[in-house]
Amino acid sequence: MHNEARDARHRLRQDEIITAARRCFRQYGFHAASMAHLASEAQLSVGQIYRYFSNKDAIIEEMIKRIIDRRIEQMIDTSSSHHLPQLLAWRHVLNEDDEALMLEVAAEATRNPRVALMMQEADTRIFDRACENVKQEYPGFSNEKIRSCVEVLAVLVEGTAYRRLTPQKASAETLYPLYQQIHQLLFHSEDS
Amino acid sequence: MHNEARDARHRLRQDEIITAARRCFRQYGFHAASMAHLASEAQLSVGQIYRYFSNKDAIIEEMIKRIIDRRIEQMIDTSSSHHLPQLLAWRHVLNEDDEALMLEVAAEATRNPRVALMMQEADTRIFDRACENVKQEYPGFSNEKIRSCVEVLAVLVEGTAYRRLTPQKASAETLYPLYQQIHQLLFHSEDS
Repeated sequence: MHNEARDARHRLRQDEIITAARRCFRQYGFHAASMAHLASEAQLSVGQIYRYFSNKDAIIEEMIKRIIDRRIEQMIDTSSSHHLPQLLAWRHVLNEDDEALMLEVAAEATRNPRVALMMQEADTRIFDRACENVKQEYPGFSNEKIRSCVEVLAVLVEGTAYRRLTPQKASAETLYPLYQQIHQLLFHSEDS
Repeated sequence: MHNEARDARHRLRQDEIITAARRCFRQYGFHAASMAHLASEAQLSVGQIYRYFSNKDAIIEEMIKRIIDRRIEQMIDTSSSHHLPQLLAWRHVLNEDDEALMLEVAAEATRNPRVALMMQEADTRIFDRACENVKQEYPGFSNEKIRSCVEVLAVLVEGTAYRRLTPQKASAETLYPLYQQIHQLLFHSEDS
């Protein structure tokens, strides 16, 4: 078999395993989802799974990597921050399963240091990309100012994602101008 | 036995079960923590546990109730919103285990409608209390304005709690004035 064909098959299998793992994790959580569950969901043998991932943590890591890739892509698409007040007020979500799985990652991170480290690396990666985007749009801002603005944005985005689990307590129409003002406050101050 | 003594013993047992349940949930997550685990951790029989709680969901519900009670108390203590910019910038936390357990609740809520409902009720309870507090401090504000300000505060508080899982990407000292300005924006606008 040619190398390309083998690589393509390898990627396809990996995709299938990640898709199956996501379904299992959503249904049972990380702890209760065993490699046997995952294999059965992917219609593979446990042995076949181990050819692609050495353990469940490796699967979680690859799943997080793909979620962060999607989020970075979305961050560039919705370029940029101009849309943010709207996304916050209307609680826009790119991918509901990604959000739920990242909550599972967060809960697991509180008891599993390896998953905590994966979450840290993922956060650093997306945070640095957000800072680069802001730097391009506001070249006059100092790095320190950019990092503090992006940290506040991250708090707003992640707090909004978390609160999507319960009904919104104020209308999007009343929240929108507040988020606009906050955005303005962060990105139009004189001490840039 | 007198009624009071019986009630006191009942409460004590309930406390012991909740304490044991919290330890099990922290260690294994809701799914993997069985009633047998809980009983062994509480040094009781499974039958004894069932005398106090009809199932695991009832234990989760009582646990959430107590966490929300503590948070409401804290909200009153740190009365009020004046301290908030400080709490956000320095990522103050009342109880680390409560935070981790509420993340577990959130992850579970994405797949268990009963837990989703508990989370909804808890959020409504604490949200309404926060609105009452703001109303007392700013009697001129309309209810709609209060609800939108409290919703933004909730996003900030919960986003900050979530981000405590990864290292802070800007110093508390640079974040503090930003949170002060946001607070001012929310609570000192003219269109109250």
